[in-house]
Amino acid sequence: MIVILKKHANPAAVAALRAGFEAQGLKLHESEGEHTHIIGLVGDTKSVDIDAVRANPAVADVRRVSEPYKKANRKFHPADTVVDCGGVPIGGGKFAVMAGPCSVESESQIRSVAADVKAAGAALLRGGAFKPRTSPYSFQGLRSDGLELLKAARAATGLPIVTEIMNTEHLPLFEDVDVIQVGARNMQNFELLKELGRIDKPILLKRGLSATLEEFLMSAEYIMAGGNEKVILCERGIRTFETSMRNTLDISAVPMLKQMSHLPVVIDPSHAAGISWMVQPLAMAAIAAGADGLMIEVHNDPAHALSDGAQSLNPAQFAALMDQVKPAVEFFGKSL
Amino acid sequence: MIVILKKHANPAAVAALRAGFEAQGLKLHESEGEHTHIIGLVGDTKSVDIDAVRANPAVADVRRVSEPYKKANRKFHPADTVVDCGGVPIGGGKFAVMAGPCSVESESQIRSVAADVKAAGAALLRGGAFKPRTSPYSFQGLRSDGLELLKAARAATGLPIVTEIMNTEHLPLFEDVDVIQVGARNMQNFELLKELGRIDKPILLKRGLSATLEEFLMSAEYIMAGGNEKVILCERGIRTFETSMRNTLDISAVPMLKQMSHLPVVIDPSHAAGISWMVQPLAMAAIAAGADGLMIEVHNDPAHALSDGAQSLNPAQFAALMDQVKPAVEFFGKSL
Amino acid sequence: MIVILKKHANPAAVAALRAGFEAQGLKLHESEGEHTHIIGLVGDTKSVDIDAVRANPAVADVRRVSEPYKKANRKFHPADTVVDCGGVPIGGGKFAVMAGPCSVESESQIRSVAADVKAAGAALLRGGAFKPRTSPYSFQGLRSDGLELLKAARAATGLPIVTEIMNTEHLPLFEDVDVIQVGARNMQNFELLKELGRIDKPILLKRGLSATLEEFLMSAEYIMAGGNEKVILCERGIRTFETSMRNTLDISAVPMLKQMSHLPVVIDPSHAAGISWMVQPLAMAAIAAGADGLMIEVHNDPAHALSDGAQSLNPAQFAALMDQVKPAVEFFGKSL
Amino acid sequence: MIVILKKHANPAAVAALRAGFEAQGLKLHESEGEHTHIIGLVGDTKSVDIDAVRANPAVADVRRVSEPYKKANRKFHPADTVVDCGGVPIGGGKFAVMAGPCSVESESQIRSVAADVKAAGAALLRGGAFKPRTSPYSFQGLRSDGLELLKAARAATGLPIVTEIMNTEHLPLFEDVDVIQVGARNMQNFELLKELGRIDKPILLKRGLSATLEEFLMSAEYIMAGGNEKVILCERGIRTFETSMRNTLDISAVPMLKQMSHLPVVIDPSHAAGISWMVQPLAMAAIAAGADGLMIEVHNDPAHALSDGAQSLNPAQFAALMDQVKPAVEFFGKSL
Repeated sequence: MIVILKKHANPAAVAALRAGFEAQGLKLHESEGEHTHIIGLVGDTKSVDIDAVRANPAVADVRRVSEPYKKANRKFHPADTVVDCGGVPIGGGKFAVMAGPCSVESESQIRSVAADVKAAGAALLRGGAFKPRTSPYSFQGLRSDGLELLKAARAATGLPIVTEIMNTEHLPLFEDVDVIQVGARNMQNFELLKELGRIDKPILLKRGLSATLEEFLMSAEYIMAGGNEKVILCERGIRTFETSMRNTLDISAVPMLKQMSHLPVVIDPSHAAGISWMVQPLAMAAIAAGADGLMIEVHNDPAHALSDGAQSLNPAQFAALMDQVKPAVEFFGKSL
Repeated sequence: MIVILKKHANPAAVAALRAGFEAQGLKLHESEGEHTHIIGLVGDTKSVDIDAVRANPAVADVRRVSEPYKKANRKFHPADTVVDCGGVPIGGGKFAVMAGPCSVESESQIRSVAADVKAAGAALLRGGAFKPRTSPYSFQGLRSDGLELLKAARAATGLPIVTEIMNTEHLPLFEDVDVIQVGARNMQNFELLKELGRIDKPILLKRGLSATLEEFLMSAEYIMAGGNEKVILCERGIRTFETSMRNTLDISAVPMLKQMSHLPVVIDPSHAAGISWMVQPLAMAAIAAGADGLMIEVHNDPAHALSDGAQSLNPAQFAALMDQVKPAVEFFGKSL
Repeated sequence: MIVILKKHANPAAVAALRAGFEAQGLKLHESEGEHTHIIGLVGDTKSVDIDAVRANPAVADVRRVSEPYKKANRKFHPADTVVDCGGVPIGGGKFAVMAGPCSVESESQIRSVAADVKAAGAALLRGGAFKPRTSPYSFQGLRSDGLELLKAARAATGLPIVTEIMNTEHLPLFEDVDVIQVGARNMQNFELLKELGRIDKPILLKRGLSATLEEFLMSAEYIMAGGNEKVILCERGIRTFETSMRNTLDISAVPMLKQMSHLPVVIDPSHAAGISWMVQPLAMAAIAAGADGLMIEVHNDPAHALSDGAQSLNPAQFAALMDQVKPAVEFFGKSL
Repeated sequence: MIVILKKHANPAAVAALRAGFEAQGLKLHESEGEHTHIIGLVGDTKSVDIDAVRANPAVADVRRVSEPYKKANRKFHPADTVVDCGGVPIGGGKFAVMAGPCSVESESQIRSVAADVKAAGAALLRGGAFKPRTSPYSFQGLRSDGLELLKAARAATGLPIVTEIMNTEHLPLFEDVDVIQVGARNMQNFELLKELGRIDKPILLKRGLSATLEEFLMSAEYIMAGGNEKVILCERGIRTFETSMRNTLDISAVPMLKQMSHLPVVIDPSHAAGISWMVQPLAMAAIAAGADGLMIEVHNDPAHALSDGAQSLNPAQFAALMDQVKPAVEFFGKSL
């Protein structure tokens, strides 16, 4: 951590600041120039409250040098983490496709989509039972009934299931789910993250619409700090000024996250643009950039979907996509 | 709602679309030009799923004409809503200042700050017991103990209290709180919003870092749709590309929200910039733009605050600010 | 164009509005519901000033249905445009790599880089003579001397040259340049765009840091409206809230621009992230998403480059990249 | 400047880096910890190319400690700069309102608006002759004829005139203009800025749509470095994700710019929201936040304006606004 002092800082305030750092066991290296006076802090600065230091009247600015995330940091864990998702490995060269409807709508719907995505080569079945919707007047999901239908579809197809949790109170309902998803809007629902840190189950953590990559990893850190290190990161588009698409896919997040962290990175090209015909090029870009998997919305009848129809593929489109995904994954050196 | 058809849309698909709308009791007005074919839908379009329509292969685009929020909409409720916050009215010409520390840290701290902000003219005491922190390694708040200390400070000063909830499971603990705050990161924690719609207590709803004003009002609508119409909107800075400040205060949100909605609008100039010396000019701008109140962080010793020290005023600075707030509120035609 | 009237609009104002539209030869289709009154305008609405309509006191909102760009619009020109760049075709299945230093620094530098990028497989030589720098104290380019050095490098290698223009007054100096580049900061320098519309030479137009795709195409339209239809679009990263990279590559712009327009689309992965090790994954993503070319910064000695060293590859790194670019371009169905 | 070295940096590379800095006359202060090795550079670092340092393979990151702007920096020029605009002072407690139409459209229009805004209390007349329009098919301004009409309006009213330049080639036409405006889209048209640095005339520099405050001041620095220190900064709204308004007014820019720089800061509430009824609250917010002036669009007949009608006030609305501006300016301690 580097502390930049004000030009004519009160010497007593500076002395008090120094004493405070030393009391925390830190070593100080100072450099003083005509225009700048800097204190470099060496040691375990994790315990230093950067805001408190910044509030000191002698301080002009404070900058962190080492990353605030530890368990998610590749520096301290150089090898790729491989997360086992109900028998399907993700990461470390193993690529997986999760597919299924935005919302579970009925037994016949989820069963038929599950069979279709399995036939096309998906390794996991996704489907929403608890749905975060912008409007209280929109379909809110089948909730616990939806979870039961997902499990039935798993029993019929053998595909492990991925589904979203929205509240700590629902945790008992998710005991038999293979991968628990945390949605973009809950990426900083810290109470939920803490609870998920206490269980032993893979968590698919979606990036918030305006979360920096560092904040994203700090949310993963919340889960990992609790003891659950099975976190899969999912980039699903960020919010920018551009209006021709629902979100802007941050493709650079793939190589950057993989450099910052050892956790697997999955891309959701369905939410990223919100447009079904863009799923294919964005899926290809994701594979090319080094992603470890894809999460894709597939609906038996997108025009009558209860949510997210505009971005869903129908089963035939998904099968056609998978015919391109398989050779592309191989071309870029991973295996499905 | 306006549906724009594709240029050479399949006539059968268009006919099916028409039939679907008519089945929902909507009237259709069509205009067809050389390059465009438009269907205008007249009637109660609240039940139409805009995404499903967009997914229809005959449809180029769909645009909503009327707002998706009803209970929060000024069109259907022209008069300003005045929310009673433990005896303190906010809205409709009545202005209030909520002040206190970011986090409740100890009994002596909250009591002394409470006494100081009351003496300076604050009408409500704010203080965080449950704290949403980006890092799991940062101070997380005194939690239920912090709530007890807040209540004790209320008993000592008579100031109603405002404090943040982070999880539905904590609701019983908030029974005796005057105003429940929903933080920016939980603005779209829909399960929490639904629960808050079932109680009878003012809710201070903070705008998410990258929430549009429409999304902000849709979150208010979640609470109101459940029956609780006591919602106060709080703008606290949005996330932009600018890096010299923690967030960018969207001052235009004040007049725009007041035109869209009848709910009171409060500004938090402390979080907006994240810099204590900017609280004064931003507070003045908020009053000038028509805000109904201010939420300001005050700490007895900002340099040693356990959170948000950089943006907190000390009691003397807050008293100096209030000396400017009072005449400014009056100058712009409201009363404290 | 769709005009949405206010609920209780003055009938005389509405009548005047109708008369005005009819005087412009437009047909009107009206639909009036309980809450909405809409006028659909059919005909050539290009001449309608949307701002003027919006300013009418009877109008609540105006929405455009057809795109404001005509010459750049794929609807009116379904086939891909192929731009001949000094003998190198770009677009319509032909892929090209432009490579070279950010700035031309000396004769030996540009000659050696030119030879290196040619050997590795680049089809065009890029290099800046006039440099837009944020600081007036930074190196501003060799200007006309730099152009001469570029031409000498072309003579030596046979590679056509691409270089940036910053001012209409410099146009005579660019007569013998193969492709003229318009930088991101000048994307809406309309006087410059107009002049470039009057010449017969390929223009590489870079997207502005915060330009929407529609604005980007409107700038292409400026050039094309003047008669020069040889425009190549270049996405080079947009400005967002993310701070770990210089810009955020908008990979979705590739498929979206290619759907909106028939013009070729090139990606600049060097500026997009501003980090040399990220050029490879972003270049692969660009190819996978359907781009028609790449623009890559290569410097003989990045650590001593006078500009943009952090994002430049050295010749060996560029050769290694090209070893991956060639099979990837083929894999995705284009030819170099 | 602070250079953060990589953990296991090559000792020879580090030695070379050190030697390079010392050759530039800089003093080095190093601090080395378990996880970090930092070199602090002390001396005149203005000549250090931060990008070149970052490209060194031994370097993990580089951070600037002192600001890159010098002439615009309040640290080296503590007193407020007052710019004389054709006899009207702006800055240092003197507040001025510039008003007039977006575009000069005809002699009668500009004369009548000029007379109206003068009567209401405006100190300068604004009006566009050269117009930057997104579409090549929109009205492009009366160009040199428009300048003549502006001068005639000045002769009739005595109001100094402010008008926008778009190209260095037009400079001779602007010799008799009182204040030259640089539009948001040209904020980084560096060739234009350099030319404006060579003349002796006030420049009203508008902030680019996505320019950081530091970049904004660097553009002012371009003008000042050339010798012309008469720069007025104008915030006119930035581009964000919010869609209910044309731009987002960054009100915090007022106090922040005034802390960073000694130059006067003016707000354009017309472009900021793009909505005429929002001009009043945003103008009040600007005054309250400490702005030194306002730039306001006034049109004799907004519904028939050739540009920006939606955000223009009519003369009666402007007079009503000025009735509120005058006491507000006084209330906040400045004089008109």
